Amino acid sequence: MVQGTVNWNTQLDKEWLQEYVDDWVSFYRKHTKEGKLASYIPILGKANPHHLGMAIHGKNGMIIRSGDVDTPFTIQSISKVISFIVACMERGVGYVLDRVDVEPTGEAFNSIMHLEMKSLNKPFNPFVNAGALTITSMLEGDTATQKLEPIYMLFEKMLGYRPSLNQEVYQSEYESSARNRAIGYYLIETGFLEEDLEITLETYFKQCSIEVTVDDLAKIGLLLACDGEDPNTGEEIIPRQIARITKALMLTCGMYDASGKFATYVGIPAKSGVSGGIVAVAPPRVRNQQFPFIEGCGIGVFGPALEDRGNSIAGIRLLKHIASQWDLSIF
Amino acid sequence: MVQGTVNWNTQLDKEWLQEYVDDWVSFYRKHTKEGKLASYIPILGKANPHHLGMAIHGKNGMIIRSGDVDTPFTIQSISKVISFIVACMERGVGYVLDRVDVEPTGEAFNSIMHLEMKSLNKPFNPFVNAGALTITSMLEGDTATQKLEPIYMLFEKMLGYRPSLNQEVYQSEYESSARNRAIGYYLIETGFLEEDLEITLETYFKQCSIEVTVDDLAKIGLLLACDGEDPNTGEEIIPRQIARITKALMLTCGMYDASGKFATYVGIPAKSGVSGGIVAVAPPRVRNQQFPFIEGCGIGVFGPALEDRGNSIAGIRLLKHIASQWDLSIF
Amino acid sequence: MVQGTVNWNTQLDKEWLQEYVDDWVSFYRKHTKEGKLASYIPILGKANPHHLGMAIHGKNGMIIRSGDVDTPFTIQSISKVISFIVACMERGVGYVLDRVDVEPTGEAFNSIMHLEMKSLNKPFNPFVNAGALTITSMLEGDTATQKLEPIYMLFEKMLGYRPSLNQEVYQSEYESSARNRAIGYYLIETGFLEEDLEITLETYFKQCSIEVTVDDLAKIGLLLACDGEDPNTGEEIIPRQIARITKALMLTCGMYDASGKFATYVGIPAKSGVSGGIVAVAPPRVRNQQFPFIEGCGIGVFGPALEDRGNSIAGIRLLKHIASQWDLSIF
Amino acid sequence: MVQGTVNWNTQLDKEWLQEYVDDWVSFYRKHTKEGKLASYIPILGKANPHHLGMAIHGKNGMIIRSGDVDTPFTIQSISKVISFIVACMERGVGYVLDRVDVEPTGEAFNSIMHLEMKSLNKPFNPFVNAGALTITSMLEGDTATQKLEPIYMLFEKMLGYRPSLNQEVYQSEYESSARNRAIGYYLIETGFLEEDLEITLETYFKQCSIEVTVDDLAKIGLLLACDGEDPNTGEEIIPRQIARITKALMLTCGMYDASGKFATYVGIPAKSGVSGGIVAVAPPRVRNQQFPFIEGCGIGVFGPALEDRGNSIAGIRLLKHIASQWDLSIF
Repeated sequence: MVQGTVNWNTQLDKEWLQEYVDDWVSFYRKHTKEGKLASYIPILGKANPHHLGMAIHGKNGMIIRSGDVDTPFTIQSISKVISFIVACMERGVGYVLDRVDVEPTGEAFNSIMHLEMKSLNKPFNPFVNAGALTITSMLEGDTATQKLEPIYMLFEKMLGYRPSLNQEVYQSEYESSARNRAIGYYLIETGFLEEDLEITLETYFKQCSIEVTVDDLAKIGLLLACDGEDPNTGEEIIPRQIARITKALMLTCGMYDASGKFATYVGIPAKSGVSGGIVAVAPPRVRNQQFPFIEGCGIGVFGPALEDRGNSIAGIRLLKHIASQWDLSIF
Repeated sequence: MVQGTVNWNTQLDKEWLQEYVDDWVSFYRKHTKEGKLASYIPILGKANPHHLGMAIHGKNGMIIRSGDVDTPFTIQSISKVISFIVACMERGVGYVLDRVDVEPTGEAFNSIMHLEMKSLNKPFNPFVNAGALTITSMLEGDTATQKLEPIYMLFEKMLGYRPSLNQEVYQSEYESSARNRAIGYYLIETGFLEEDLEITLETYFKQCSIEVTVDDLAKIGLLLACDGEDPNTGEEIIPRQIARITKALMLTCGMYDASGKFATYVGIPAKSGVSGGIVAVAPPRVRNQQFPFIEGCGIGVFGPALEDRGNSIAGIRLLKHIASQWDLSIF
Repeated sequence: MVQGTVNWNTQLDKEWLQEYVDDWVSFYRKHTKEGKLASYIPILGKANPHHLGMAIHGKNGMIIRSGDVDTPFTIQSISKVISFIVACMERGVGYVLDRVDVEPTGEAFNSIMHLEMKSLNKPFNPFVNAGALTITSMLEGDTATQKLEPIYMLFEKMLGYRPSLNQEVYQSEYESSARNRAIGYYLIETGFLEEDLEITLETYFKQCSIEVTVDDLAKIGLLLACDGEDPNTGEEIIPRQIARITKALMLTCGMYDASGKFATYVGIPAKSGVSGGIVAVAPPRVRNQQFPFIEGCGIGVFGPALEDRGNSIAGIRLLKHIASQWDLSIF
Repeated sequence: MVQGTVNWNTQLDKEWLQEYVDDWVSFYRKHTKEGKLASYIPILGKANPHHLGMAIHGKNGMIIRSGDVDTPFTIQSISKVISFIVACMERGVGYVLDRVDVEPTGEAFNSIMHLEMKSLNKPFNPFVNAGALTITSMLEGDTATQKLEPIYMLFEKMLGYRPSLNQEVYQSEYESSARNRAIGYYLIETGFLEEDLEITLETYFKQCSIEVTVDDLAKIGLLLACDGEDPNTGEEIIPRQIARITKALMLTCGMYDASGKFATYVGIPAKSGVSGGIVAVAPPRVRNQQFPFIEGCGIGVFGPALEDRGNSIAGIRLLKHIASQWDLSIF
């Protein structure tokens, strides 16, 4: 491991980095006003659009936190990463990828059109809603509670605590579910859905309503940066093959229909949600060892004002800046 | 650099690797019969469908060659990588990416539909034909010869010799150009094309008709693995930023509408052409130093029997196998 | 009225016509074997695919019946004509056409794609499912029973009796409703649907499950040929403007995505359903008075073997033949 | 014939009708300001947007003219009616309809998307550009001059004189031909086009650049109202079957993607062009004999300010008003 060759980690370095990060966060907070809160789930529209927070958790134990780091928010589409991982762990990668493709679409996340237009034999990828619902329908168990339990257990292993459901958001999602029901019934008709739609939707809205913080997202990102292995204990929490496929999917499909731009301009696997969260994964790289994070880190961002594709507007700009400053791109 | 810590490079290792690679190439050659030669340009249909060859050029100087390595073939769509690089060098990355997006499409490379359906203000990415023609139209110069000169010069720097045009293939392309003309006129009408279409098409068909070998592709791949810097002399042949953006694009859009699957199952930047060539880039990685190629290598493959998306059928299976055996994935 | 100038109607003529029609029906019955029963509602798959029956009801009182005229069948999509008329009578034509367009689509009747692709502000027309569900949601009443009552009342006026619901077909429709639910939820999300979806669907499936015979369809056709006026009593059953708009819609959109071909080759307003029924309207014409039906008639056809667009295969060929023989085309 | 029973045609009636028509034309001229001149062919943008003129030619010899009736204009897309008729006369209806479908599209007239999206085996209908170019390519002859001669001859028979080409408009069309070239090359690639594209385009742009007046269009409309038979001489100028198919096509596809609305609200076969011309056909009807035109008339309209689909904005409103006042609808 390269780790040994890096003699960074003194208090001085950390303070120096913290200062930079604080500057960047306060600079990009101004950009929040160019974005808009998600509107399709009414309760998300009540967030504070000027919030911006970030946490960076390094493989070497360093943690940098800046901005609005203490506001909890619901995980939303970032949960698609978790349900994909759990489905792969339960069913095997082959089973899952036989039923959901891994191609980027060029379409919005909630498109039905693509399914029909191409007479597809499977949804485009696990991160568009059609694919995510199919994945959720694969989870083992006969009730939402049973299906969610392994998801909660994985969260517990990753975060060190069991996150809780935001009941109010869940209620709001449930009441604004027309589009997802439309997709769900389409999936039933075309034979993709494996389960009763009501159970799938309950599970899906609940997985989306789990409440996290930027530190939680950073921990998840770090675990993926470490190929699923706990950086402290060395325990395999997510099988290596699944962790790596997940990162490939995040890079090609993680940022809605701005995924290509994010891959090009930022260059790290990431997944966003409409609540304004982003989890980003900076794996270890040989290229540049001037910064400790090159050894690998996870980044959690929260900024509920979104650009028109559904990503945190200040969040992606902040990530772009950091990736460029610290040369995080995997390319 | 990690390089120093690797004590590989003895003759023994090379022989041992060569044996493996020979086995794999002869195994996957059997898969060629599941594919089909390209048919849309008549002359490509005359290739030998059972051919399969591969060259691997490592950062550390090691070269492994196996199978049909001496058959020259035209570069076809892989030239889109080169013209994109040259356009970025001539015009600046900002200029180019203002005019061509970097999003994967989910559509075939020669789709016109997408342009119309989404009322796009720019083609989806530089590797679909609409984007590639737009890129070619940006190249400096008033004639095809002037526009091609910097492309030839870049080839010369990368390959150590000036490759030649296959006149017969160029003629065949020119005579089978209806679809590209349809796209070209669509681009004129929507204002994307910067030049006379005839000059753009002549340039484009000529850039596609440049003849290369698997060693040439491996050299190009290695140069990109080294972020554009000549691994022997340290000279910057392609600016670092451009090299890295190019790799991001190859990963998200390089393998036609199978790019997502290639990213997931193989996990390295690559670009294919309908003549059966693939250039793949395995950048240095910290993860696994048991194999020398982890320090970075370029891979050139040639296998003219294609799967239904237009990629060498044996080529992608061979790359998948090697990437898995040597842990090349960037994820 | 031209009527007075026609001195046809003797027993002789009728026998002569009957003979012809019998010949045609038995000839086209052979064509039923080129078609297939509807499969998407399981119970429709149990019909006898070799059935073919026709009834012609003339304005002058003449009735010709031939083939399998006594088999009742569910009205299916032909009910879209009736619900459109009732909605226009209840809400006014302006209200209805503000909410549903009247354009042919070129797409299948159950397409969702079109709604999304064009970001439409209203469904394409009242005869695609998206439009028909929107129309049904407009019907007055808080329950399916209340909404259906005016439909039954209109049937009673047109047919002289109150038709009954085929409970078994209704049940089968209800259980095969995934695609219509998908469309329904899409309509909810986009704000087209005015009512609770469950009530709309119950109403819709019930209106589709009303049982009729070819004579019933011929009566409906005749009433439309007479611009909504009862040919015997002169009573206005459907307001003239609504009857005429309905005929225009039937001509442009009545035969699924074969409407253009039906308009060209047959040339009369018609609407088909997947149970194999067709109602056709031959309005009075000045052109050719050699045949009494030129004064106007309604035609009901039943032939459950369908072509690939969902129309009775023998039925449309039979109508084409008759329209040509008797010069029924409105063009 | 009903004709004999009508005792209209006195000077009084004509004056009385003329007064009405003058009122309507001057009322609807105000609507021209809500429209816009065609912009895609530069020279069309030089027309006077406030122009509105109409000519009505009745089967009984009556002629009513009102507004800007003396301004000549190029026939544009209305020529698609003529080339379709000539192709049917030269090749036979079967040959033509085997190669071009007769379905409305729901898409803009210059869509390429539909061809690709549906992998169609023929263009949607003769009045979208893809279909019209295919029709023009079928015309007999090896040069544009040879192909155009039968078109000119048909015009001569219909109008009583040989119309001339507006060379300036032709030049402008030719220079703004990118979209039509895109469609043309798409047609070549998919095998629809029967001829050299340059000859097809020259023929097509020339047929579009033929100059007519509202009286010419009214004569064409009247001839179609009479099923192709000269109302004065009884000579068959267009075979009856072709005339009737043409009217069916005009009704379902004649007014671009507003054809369904025109069929519903106006209810007569019509074809418009982007120069602002409309030819409308009111065939004889039995229904209402209070107005002489019910015996059949042709209507020519010119109003170069267009609505967003490409139809004369004042022209369609004027036609809607007249059709309603005189009960012209064929439904």
